Amino acid sequence: MRKNKYAIGIDVGATVIKVGLVKANGKIVSKNSFSTKRAIAKNDLIEEIIKQIKQLKQKNSLSNKDLVGVGIGFPGCVDYAKGIVHDLTNIKGWKNVPLKKILQKRLGLLVSVDNDVNAFAQGQLIWGVARKIKNAICVTLGSGVGGGLIINGAIYRGSNYSAGEVGHICIDIDGPRCGCGSNGCLEAFVGNTYIIKRCIEKIKKGEKTILVSMVGGKLSKIKPDLMHKAAKKGDRFSINAWKDLGTYLGVGLSGLVNVLNPEKIIIGGGVSKAGKFIFEPLKKELIRRTMKQHLKILKIVKADFADEAGVVGAASLAMKVKR
Amino acid sequence: MRKNKYAIGIDVGATVIKVGLVKANGKIVSKNSFSTKRAIAKNDLIEEIIKQIKQLKQKNSLSNKDLVGVGIGFPGCVDYAKGIVHDLTNIKGWKNVPLKKILQKRLGLLVSVDNDVNAFAQGQLIWGVARKIKNAICVTLGSGVGGGLIINGAIYRGSNYSAGEVGHICIDIDGPRCGCGSNGCLEAFVGNTYIIKRCIEKIKKGEKTILVSMVGGKLSKIKPDLMHKAAKKGDRFSINAWKDLGTYLGVGLSGLVNVLNPEKIIIGGGVSKAGKFIFEPLKKELIRRTMKQHLKILKIVKADFADEAGVVGAASLAMKVKR
Repeated sequence: MRKNKYAIGIDVGATVIKVGLVKANGKIVSKNSFSTKRAIAKNDLIEEIIKQIKQLKQKNSLSNKDLVGVGIGFPGCVDYAKGIVHDLTNIKGWKNVPLKKILQKRLGLLVSVDNDVNAFAQGQLIWGVARKIKNAICVTLGSGVGGGLIINGAIYRGSNYSAGEVGHICIDIDGPRCGCGSNGCLEAFVGNTYIIKRCIEKIKKGEKTILVSMVGGKLSKIKPDLMHKAAKKGDRFSINAWKDLGTYLGVGLSGLVNVLNPEKIIIGGGVSKAGKFIFEPLKKELIRRTMKQHLKILKIVKADFADEAGVVGAASLAMKVKR
Repeated sequence: MRKNKYAIGIDVGATVIKVGLVKANGKIVSKNSFSTKRAIAKNDLIEEIIKQIKQLKQKNSLSNKDLVGVGIGFPGCVDYAKGIVHDLTNIKGWKNVPLKKILQKRLGLLVSVDNDVNAFAQGQLIWGVARKIKNAICVTLGSGVGGGLIINGAIYRGSNYSAGEVGHICIDIDGPRCGCGSNGCLEAFVGNTYIIKRCIEKIKKGEKTILVSMVGGKLSKIKPDLMHKAAKKGDRFSINAWKDLGTYLGVGLSGLVNVLNPEKIIIGGGVSKAGKFIFEPLKKELIRRTMKQHLKILKIVKADFADEAGVVGAASLAMKVKR
């Protein structure tokens, strides 16, 4: 990308859609976000995206020739080559939408569309902790467990753009039911919703934790950020919940490391903010389970760009950066 | 490779070493094998390899200019680029041996050295069921569980040549101890030695099977080929043992399919001779556990070249075939 040009990144999340104007060095110079609720139908979302891009251009006094293009990360299966979004569970009518084609016509700009975790991984590859890395496993921890693979210095998308479903490795043959229809999947152990569900069950069984007073007894208000606060205050219950998460994650990722032999595991996503409470047990379990040869070169690191990793990653899709 | 040229393939196994002269179309025209016991020390094996190659050339009236080179598949970690065999557990003194360099000097031929399952996968890629396939998972079932990955139409070797350890995916967090130091690994469920051990335990606990009379009561004589024979005769015990194997394999591979999104799973190795007794439960479990999008394009197939897949694969390493 030419140094004086910009890319627009759009990160479509389950609750919020983030929009950012990103410079050739990966820095966000202008941003906005809106509730996914404002896009309850297919056309709403398309119109909202177009509106946001226009606003971003106006606000920063840019015209199309100042932009290399637009990158969009979607949660779900996206045909990256054709720019077709195959499904988008939260928004009505999203089934095989040729979004790239629609938006390119409307905007007069190059548009790249990809799965959100692939976009996240691409951002790490161009500007973040995966720079100069040949092989890495990127994981986002949130309501689900997302995965993006870097293989031979590029995003690996699989044979029909469905690669990277790290959350659906079975770590326990007799484990709990997973949303995907299988059971014992990593996601059923470390996904946001499952963690909180297990915590509430334990509290109801009589386990003690300061979380109860923190939510004024309303257990449904327990969220990962509160569990992180509680852990920092020394709450044994919360520390153990994070320890379980890190350990389970280590079980799943150890197998993947043994198969893919990467240089880095890159962890991002909202839940990863719990930092050392997850990373320490994760590393311990990985060391215990991963083969010696593989451990020699493996590093476990936090993703760059924190809450902006999605939007920076989306913008990176639009970049023509040669590595 | 020029059509009138040959490659020599050498497959170094735990009990037997196979040598083959292979034509540019992948057909073996001449072969030999010798017991690994004849190579108890490092230099023994090197001298034996050189002797075998000379014999093969003489027998077929070939000189070096009729050969494109020699390919060797080793069980263990091999630096493919440098041709260094890092370890070879069964043979004394094999630690960081620069085999490619040693043999090239002695033979005056190009030599390629790789992990045996990578060699196996390369053979499938050039001449076998992986022809024209972009992404595939190759699995060899024997005393251990080997893995070779085909990614973007080439063998994927990982960041320090250790990729493909499919046997060391954890499928049961509380599962049995594995030789690698971890527990619950796929190999601890489907490796040869573990299967037989479990069968013997069950028989001792009183389960009925015709295997007992087939080995004249000597349970230590139970081997996979006998279990296959028994299953063909309708022995419920043996059928169930294969069913367990196929199911466990399906659990481990489902996660890998969800992550790698390949077009094919290619199964080889001695144990895979049990055919439908493994493949049917394997397919059933994969269908149950793999995500819908991934299943759309997935085929589960038997490897080509049966018992010669290792030696054909090794020869393929020496080929300069452009795909």
